[in-house]
Parts: sequence; C-alpha cells; structure tokens
Amino acid sequence: MGVNSNRVEHFDCHETTIKIQAEIQMPPLEIHRVRLPPERTTLQKLRHRLSEIFFPDDPLHRFKNQTWFMKLLLGLQYLFPIFQWGPNYNLSLLRSDAIAGLTIASLAIPQGISYAKLANLPPIVGLYSSFVPPLIYSLLGSSRHLGVGPVSIASLVMGSMLSETVSYTQDPILYLKLAFTATFFAGVFQSSLGILRLGFVIDFLSKPTLVGFMAGAAIIVSLQQLKGLLGIVHFTSKMQIIPVLFSVFKHRAEWSLPTILLGFGFLAFLLATRQINQKKPKLFWVSAAAPLTSVILSTIIVFLLRNKTQGIATIGYLPKGLNPPSPNMLYFNGPYLALAIKTGIVTGILSLTEGIAVGRTFAALKNYQVDGNKEMMAIGLMNIAGSCSSCYVTTGSFSRSAVNYNAGAQTAVSNIIMASAVLVTLLFLMPLFYYTPNVVLAAIIITAVVGLIDYQAAYKLWKVDKLDFLACLCSFFGVLFISVPLGLGIAVAISVFKILLHVSRPNTVILGNIPGTQIFHNLNQYGEALRVPSFLILGVESPIFFANSNYLQERILRWIREEEDGIKANNETALRCIILDMTAVTAIDTSGIDTLCELKKTLEQRSLQLVLANPVGNVMEKLHHSKILDSFGLKGIYLTVGEAVADISLPWKAQP
Amino acid sequence: MGVNSNRVEHFDCHETTIKIQAEIQMPPLEIHRVRLPPERTTLQKLRHRLSEIFFPDDPLHRFKNQTWFMKLLLGLQYLFPIFQWGPNYNLSLLRSDAIAGLTIASLAIPQGISYAKLANLPPIVGLYSSFVPPLIYSLLGSSRHLGVGPVSIASLVMGSMLSETVSYTQDPILYLKLAFTATFFAGVFQSSLGILRLGFVIDFLSKPTLVGFMAGAAIIVSLQQLKGLLGIVHFTSKMQIIPVLFSVFKHRAEWSLPTILLGFGFLAFLLATRQINQKKPKLFWVSAAAPLTSVILSTIIVFLLRNKTQGIATIGYLPKGLNPPSPNMLYFNGPYLALAIKTGIVTGILSLTEGIAVGRTFAALKNYQVDGNKEMMAIGLMNIAGSCSSCYVTTGSFSRSAVNYNAGAQTAVSNIIMASAVLVTLLFLMPLFYYTPNVVLAAIIITAVVGLIDYQAAYKLWKVDKLDFLACLCSFFGVLFISVPLGLGIAVAISVFKILLHVSRPNTVILGNIPGTQIFHNLNQYGEALRVPSFLILGVESPIFFANSNYLQERILRWIREEEDGIKANNETALRCIILDMTAVTAIDTSGIDTLCELKKTLEQRSLQLVLANPVGNVMEKLHHSKILDSFGLKGIYLTVGEAVADISLPWKAQP
Repeated sequence: MGVNSNRVEHFDCHETTIKIQAEIQMPPLEIHRVRLPPERTTLQKLRHRLSEIFFPDDPLHRFKNQTWFMKLLLGLQYLFPIFQWGPNYNLSLLRSDAIAGLTIASLAIPQGISYAKLANLPPIVGLYSSFVPPLIYSLLGSSRHLGVGPVSIASLVMGSMLSETVSYTQDPILYLKLAFTATFFAGVFQSSLGILRLGFVIDFLSKPTLVGFMAGAAIIVSLQQLKGLLGIVHFTSKMQIIPVLFSVFKHRAEWSLPTILLGFGFLAFLLATRQINQKKPKLFWVSAAAPLTSVILSTIIVFLLRNKTQGIATIGYLPKGLNPPSPNMLYFNGPYLALAIKTGIVTGILSLTEGIAVGRTFAALKNYQVDGNKEMMAIGLMNIAGSCSSCYVTTGSFSRSAVNYNAGAQTAVSNIIMASAVLVTLLFLMPLFYYTPNVVLAAIIITAVVGLIDYQAAYKLWKVDKLDFLACLCSFFGVLFISVPLGLGIAVAISVFKILLHVSRPNTVILGNIPGTQIFHNLNQYGEALRVPSFLILGVESPIFFANSNYLQERILRWIREEEDGIKANNETALRCIILDMTAVTAIDTSGIDTLCELKKTLEQRSLQLVLANPVGNVMEKLHHSKILDSFGLKGIYLTVGEAVADISLPWKAQP
Repeated sequence: MGVNSNRVEHFDCHETTIKIQAEIQMPPLEIHRVRLPPERTTLQKLRHRLSEIFFPDDPLHRFKNQTWFMKLLLGLQYLFPIFQWGPNYNLSLLRSDAIAGLTIASLAIPQGISYAKLANLPPIVGLYSSFVPPLIYSLLGSSRHLGVGPVSIASLVMGSMLSETVSYTQDPILYLKLAFTATFFAGVFQSSLGILRLGFVIDFLSKPTLVGFMAGAAIIVSLQQLKGLLGIVHFTSKMQIIPVLFSVFKHRAEWSLPTILLGFGFLAFLLATRQINQKKPKLFWVSAAAPLTSVILSTIIVFLLRNKTQGIATIGYLPKGLNPPSPNMLYFNGPYLALAIKTGIVTGILSLTEGIAVGRTFAALKNYQVDGNKEMMAIGLMNIAGSCSSCYVTTGSFSRSAVNYNAGAQTAVSNIIMASAVLVTLLFLMPLFYYTPNVVLAAIIITAVVGLIDYQAAYKLWKVDKLDFLACLCSFFGVLFISVPLGLGIAVAISVFKILLHVSRPNTVILGNIPGTQIFHNLNQYGEALRVPSFLILGVESPIFFANSNYLQERILRWIREEEDGIKANNETALRCIILDMTAVTAIDTSGIDTLCELKKTLEQRSLQLVLANPVGNVMEKLHHSKILDSFGLKGIYLTVGEAVADISLPWKAQP
C-alpha cells in the first residue's frame, strides 16, 4: 500500500526542517517524570464513571447557561422534536413529505397485511399497526426519515414464538391477547432501556451476528411462504428448516396449480422491480409501487376468475373501521404471561436494533444526530400505545425508511400522511381486499425478506475478520436449525466470548528502536527497527486483568527465556533490563497489580531489572494506592521507552 | 510520590548529554511511514492464534534440538516430575522431608476426620482421602510444597450440594455413591481442563470474588459447626445463613453444657495457637500440632468422664484397614446423575482454583514454575484414582501446604511420608478415635475456616479498586444468603460484566504536547502539557469493537463539539484537524472499521480532517483489507502524533 511514499524526499529540503524545528523543538536531553493524575475523591470518580456509562452524549449540554424560558422551550423540543422543525415548516416541505408519505402508504398497506399474516395475526391488525404508531412516532421520534410500521423480523419472531405454544386457528382470542401483551411488554422494555439509558445493551447484537441472523430468518420465512405460494392448507407451525421443508413436500397433494402460477408470476414481477431499484436508485418508486400494483392486479384477476378457480385462498372479509381499543385484551396473569414477556423482550430488542440502526443510517446520510436512548423511548411509547389500540410490535422499518428517504421525505410529517392514507383505507377500502389472494402476500413477503440476505456483507466479514465471520455463521445456522431466539442467544454469546477471548489472551510484542529516532515499535511490523542490546522491551497490548494476569506473567517470562536462549546462541551481551511499555495497558485491577509485583520479584531473583514505561493515569493511581509504586521507585518508571533506555544504560557506559 | 525527583539536575551536565546522544541520536526531521506487518496466510494466522490460546507457555520448548534419548527422558520427566528430582535425591533432603511429612500428618489426621464430617461423610473417608491422593500427587505433581488432602471449601460445597437432595442419615450408601461419583467427575473435569489446555477458565474466578466467596463460606461453615459446638442433635441441612441461625436457636433445649464447655475451651486453645503462629512464623509447629494435641486431650478427657457425661457425642467405632476399592460405588445412571455431575464440576473447579493458587504461591516463593495445565492433570488424575479408592475430592490444601513449607519440605516426598503416617493410623490407631468428641472436630473446623476470612484483602480491594470490592461483596452475600454455587455464579458473572463494562465504555483522553519534546500525553494527567492550536488530539484507550463503536463515535463527536464550543468562547483559531492516537487501539473489528469510516465522512462534511496516528499491526491489516486505508491515503496515517502535527500544520504555515 502506498501510504506516505515520496514522503521522505518531500522533507529533506532544509527550510522545512527549520520550519518543523520552529514548530516542535527537539526534546532537550532531560528525563520527564511520570505524573499522577490530580487526586479525586471516590465520589467524584464514581460520578464521572456513572456519567460516562449513562450519559456519554451529555444530553443536557444544550441547557447549559440558558434562560429558564429557553430551557423550557428546549425541554419541550427535547421531548417532542416536532417543536424543533414545526415552527419553520412550510409548503414546499409539505409537498415533498406528501409525496413520500403516499409512496410509503402504497407500500405500507400490502406490507402491513402480509407481515400480520407472517405473525399469524389477522391481516387487519397489520393495517391498524400502520396507523397509530406512525402518528405517535411523528410526535416523539427524532429521526426525520424513519418509516414506521411492522417489520418482517419482529413479525416472524413473534409468530414463531407464540405459535409454538398457542395456535391462532384454535384459540384466536388468546393468541391476539398474547400478541398485544407481548407488544406491550416490548414497549415497556424498549422505553425502560431508554429511560435507564441502557441503550448500549443493543450494541451487543453486533452487525456480524445480525447479518447471519437476518439471512437465516429470511430463508426460514421464504420457505414458510411456500405454504401460501403452493396453496398448501395444512402446514407446520415450527420454525426450523427441516420440519418446514418436510411439510412442504409431505402435502404435495395440496399444491394447487393456479395458485402456483399466480404466485410465481407476481414473485417474478416483484423481484424484477427490486432488481430495477438496485440498478437505478432513481426508479425507487417502481419497486415501491410494485406491491400495491400486484395486490390490485391479483385481486382483479381473482375477482374475474372467481367462478372458475376454487383453489386460490383469499383474504376474505375485513371489518371496516378504525383501531378498536384493546387495553382489555392485555393479559397480565395466567399461565402464558411468561411466554408473553419473553416474546415481548425478544421482539422488542430485535425491533429496537433495526429501528435504531435504520435511524442512525439515514441520519448519517443527512448528517444529523439521532439520540439512541431517546429513540428507544419514542419506539417504546409507540408500542405501548400500539398495544392499547390493537397494534402489534412496530419499529422503524428498513424498507419503508429507504423508500421514504428516496421519495424525498423531509420531516416526520411523511409518517402522518402515510397514517392518513391508511386511515382512509381502514374506513372505506377494506371490502376491496375481499378477493386479494394470500399467494400475492406470500410473494410480497418473500421479496421483502430476500433483501435481508446480505451475502456481500458476509463475504466482507470473511475477508476482514474471520472471527466476525464465524459469529455470523453461528447465528445463521443457529436460526436455521435450532430456533430464532436461541440462534440469537448463540450469536450474542459468541460476540461476548470473542471479547473475553481477546481480553484473556492479549497480544505482547517485542519493541525495537527505529534508527535515528526515539521511537520504539513492534519489531515484527517494522522491519527497520533494531533491538537495543541487553534490553528486552515488551509492549503489552491490553489492560492487565484477573482474566489475563496469569497468562501475561507466563508469556512475559517466556519472552525472557526465548530472548536469553537467543543471546546464548549468538553470544551477545547478556540481558540486564526488561522494559514493559504500558502505553496500551489502559487499566489494571488488583490481580494485575499482584502480577506486576510477582513478576518484579521473580526477575530480581534473576538479577534482571523490571521497568515500566508510560503507565497511563488510572494505572498510575492504582499502582500508587497499592504502594507498589514505591517498590519501583526512582529508576522504575519512565515516561517513554527512549528515556528509560537512555537513563538506564547510562551507568553501564560509565564503567565499560 | 517521589519518582524521578532530582532527575533533571542529574542530566544537565554536558558529557552525559553527549553520552545519550551517542546512545540514541535525535530524530532527524523526516516522516516515517506506518508499515503493514508481513503478509501471513489465514492458516498461519490461525495457527499462531491457536498456539497463543492453548500453548502460551510453549510446553515443548525443552524438546527443541535434543537427541531422541534426551527427548524420551525429558518426556518422562514431563509426565512424572519425580524423575527430575529423584536422581539427585539424598539423605539431607529426606530428613527435612520426613520432619515436614510428620508435621503435616499430625495436622492431616484430625483435619481429614473433621472435613469429612463437614461433607457429611463418615470420618474414615477423610483419612482415606489423606492416603491415596498424596501418593499419586507425589508422582505426577510439579509443585514441591503442595500438601495434598481434603480442603474445607470443597468439602463444604460437596456436603451442601448433596445434602440438599440426599440425606446421609437416611440413605448413607446412596450418599457415599454420589460423593465418590462427584469426585470422579471432578477428576475427569479437572484433568480434561488440563489436557484441553483450558486452564485459563479458572482465571475467571478472580481473586476478589474468591475472597468474598471464601469469607461467606467460612461464616456459614462456622455457624454450621454450632451444631457440634452446642451439642444440637436436630439441625438443618440448609446452607443459607437464616435457616442455620434459626435452627441454632430453635433447638436451644438440646444445648448441652459439658459439650459447650469442652468445645469453647478447645476453640479458645486452637485460636490462641493460630494467633501465636501469625505473630511468630517460627513457631508454626505450635499451631500445626495443636489439632492433634486437642484431639488427644479431648479424647482422654471424654474417656475419663465416660460414665459421668452422656451429653457429649463422640465419633464412635471406626473400622481398621486400608482404603476399600470403590469403583463399584460409582453411580453412572439414575435420577441423581445430574446432581453428581454438577457437584463434581463445582467442587472440581473450586478445589482446582485453590490447588493451583496455592501451588503458584509457594512456587513463586522458591522461584520455580508450576505448569498450570499440568497441575490440573495431576490433580484430576489424583481425584479419579481417589474416587476408585473411597476418597472424596482432594487438592492442594492451603493450610497443609503452608505448614509443609514452614516445616522445611524440599520435595513431594513429604507427601509420601504423610501418607505413610496416615497408613499407620488406618492400620492400627483407629480404635483410639472411639472417644474423640465431635465437638473438638467442630472446633478444629472453625479454626481452619476462620483463616479463610481475609478482611485485610477486602480492605485493600476497597482502597485500590472499588469495582473489585463490589464483586467481592456480591459473592460474599450471594454465598451467605442464596447458595454456594449460585453465589459463585454471581461472582463470575460480575467479573465478566466488569470486563464487558470496561470494553463497552472505554476511556478517551485529550492529548497535549509536553513542551520541548515530541511527546504527546494526557492533558489531565500532565499539567505541563499544552494543546496544539487548531488540532484536537484524542487518545482512544481500548480496542474498537462492536460493543463500543457507537459509544466511541458519539463520544468523539462530543469531544469535538465541546472543543469547538471552547474555541468559540475564547475565540481561538478554529479547529482544522482531529488526530486519533491509535496506540492503545490494540484491535478492531468490522463494526469498528465502519465507525471509523462514518466518523471520517461526518467530519469531512464539517470540513475537518481525520488523521490516525500509530495504528498497530493487526489494525493496519484490517484497515488494509477493508480498503479504507486508501480512503485515508497519504496524509491520513502517521507513525507518531508529533510527525502528524508537524506535517499537517506545514502547509498552513506556508500561507499565513
């Protein structure tokens, strides 16, 4: 790679030299002492630590030195971002929002119906869920491009988790109750995460694991859609790949030709439009309008052929009217409460992850900030409200947001427009869906979820980081063969294990001096770096923790042993001093301190000197409090490796 | 603290200056390029990674370039360390070993009996366990000072875990079976940890958590001994503090005065000897001999008063003879198998932790190495053998090893001597224990476990590391109020959580230039360091992971915001360049790379330049593979902050 080639020539001319000398003087030959950070009381430390953990983004910084009226206004704006953009909202903004809103509505209606079926819920619930939540979000949400509604993963997970114990066909009321209750708990969980500022927990669903998880989920969902696509009547409610495939072929008798033709026809059409969209992002509206188009077309077709074809299952009667209130449907005691809570938490965290990620993505594109914790509260409240108005889990959907963004949405108003379009549909257009065939919904779902299979990302993982790729694979197969929540659990476990592995087996490198400088660097990385005779300079590249202190001790002793073997082999000058470069040792705990002590003792018995270079602030503090700083004393701790080498080798030179 | 005071004067004299200059020349003014580490194939990387994970100590280094005969010999020595010290074993060594062996025997016999009772096992099993395992260890073990036998914690845990489901009084055979089976699984678990070289798992039982755990366990055990000490007959088998205290006072009627007098008398005596030992380590033999003395004395007393006192419970009849073989007692199928395995694993890991820790401690004192994984195999095999010869879980006991060490043991032969002493006891002296009162055993146990309460350590934790102290407290109360294994689980969970917290909320610091040097350091730690105008130099003190990438991004943006606010406030020269010092960023994963990209984009939109200083080898590699290295390009990556500042500010100087 061509970094900094022709850099050196560029610098050899003299006056530049002068320039830099004027800019940064060369170090005069004195030794700098390592300082302790300023004393702080435990309370101060605790306060600082907590504020870093819970308020890293310092959410109140806007309020600093403002009048009380401004503070009030800012507070209002903080709670309801609508007050930020509301005042200077104008017609031109409204126009673009209106266009975007109608565009996502045309996607939202068929999507809502399809995803509801995906969660084994009546289609109407999907439409309800595209009406109330968007309105709430447009008040509370801080993202301007998020398109709110049900999403495939959450729907699928809810469907699978509930169906494994309760069947909609056998006990629809109970199933609905559980769905709304799960939604309620999802909302409570999400908003409490936001209120407790524990937003960082969702960071543990790392991107690699999500890539694998989504791909696995997408495959399962697509296979499940074969039910609709082939017109199978009796189908498994299981979510593992084997039973699903099995029941696809078991019921070959039930396959109905007209359904298949219709289904694959529209599937081809939808996939084609998707291709177009990927080729020419300008033509986003083609794929955005495709679902509605195919719903309308298929409905007309089925309507015309209604006497000839019996085989094609349709949605059938949908009640007109707005979301009925559903607080009475919430299920707070009984045998299934645990299931509802579990489902709520899993779907909650999944939808949260998608919502936040999508919000961040589009915010980054337009270069504005979304406050993760605030988003969580918004999404959570919107789900709580949803659970009381016959909606199931909703969040910022990737497909809708993408369309919304491409359609030129400017503010959350586009969500209001979409909601109104859904409102109109709910009030007047429901009968039109009577003849809409399920098969086209299946086609829509497949097209939607196929987009979740991101093989390029997986390939990139493989190229950049094998361990990430492994995590990705595990969550993929976990979802395919075990179960959705377990697959997710495995994925998280692997991510955590990856961290622990890194912490318990940190890197240690030998440093050498880059000729003509005071810079010391990894001998392996820098071919030109030279060992300093009778010194062994080790860089420890991790905090020294209980989890790695024993390892580090053994490893360092091994470095010394190998060094001494090498010296014996080519009889060089004997080893006299070990320098530990502590720059990357960003923390140390009591076990780590004990290790340093033991190491020092062991080396002294071998008449080797142990020296620390550049311990960072909190490490110095700990060393100080544990009194071992004194045992290192004057000649034990230096600011830089260079100064350590210079100062220590000085007396040796004196008596050659 | 007085590190490096009077250092500067020491260096002002001229010829030293020359000297150092001769030693390390000043850096000439050229920019050094950051290099990629040498290319390695995935396979090579994998091999290196695995060898670091599983063979950090390079166990085969002794075998390198040796004749096949030497290799054979070394292999034999590796498997049976006795071949290392055996050949040059001599009489003087034997003498000191004999003294040490007899001393620990005098401790081991009463301890064996008492700990067996602690595990609700018949006393004789305790003696069996002090006979076979020490012999095996003396062949396989690599520590020269480890005193092998049953230990309080393992005994207590086994007793509590088994007693909660099976009662010895009701079904002694089943209880024995389960105890031996648990021992077997403990051995299998331990040795497989060693063979699979997974020794590092026990590192996750950090010292702080162990301090808390032991203290909690010690308190519970001592309270349980009130049964013997007060002569209570009906006593709870529960291990939580509340039921124990409750049943102590519930059965106040059963308290027997003579027992209490005898018990507290000997308790006082034993505690006094312990004090003496702590005051004058020379007099270790006082406390070492005390248990045997008090057993003998109490037995005589009870024998003399045998007609007057009914109240005092005694051990009663003990069968003469050696360990009966017990493979037939192993319990491999049935309802309690899971319990046996669980107990085996918990006791196994606990005893392993104590054994390894004790071994390491005394090895460090005499400056020799103990190979953790090898020790695990030795302890494991010794337990497997034990389970087939009527022994329960044994390991290196801290009390015995301490006595052993103080008594001047030189090699594992002291264990053999101890075993022979126990042998003699088993063959001839068993009847003498007929009148030994249980109360004295209770006193011995209390004295032993009280030593496990290390309040000084706890205090030190509080002073040095509050989080460690918290972990310690949690495991303490977990054991006290919930249960032993759960308390342990909590402890481990906290330790892991501590790591995750550190990783997901890493430290970021502003660096400034230390005047007259090219050194850049934490402004907070180094008062003399100065900000460089129109630069913001941030040190990121952690790998950039999925778990912290979002946090870091937000945090860095906040640093920039605050910096810009500050600049506006005291209208300084505007910010133009952000330098990230990557020295402490020891690793990066795909999420981290994405974060860097986004950050770069965001800053470019604000016309701020983002520059990386000194990325380490594997980070460079990842940046390279993910192609973002090119996007940083020539002026994006520097070897040191100093060079970055010099080079970037150059053109600005040119056009002022």
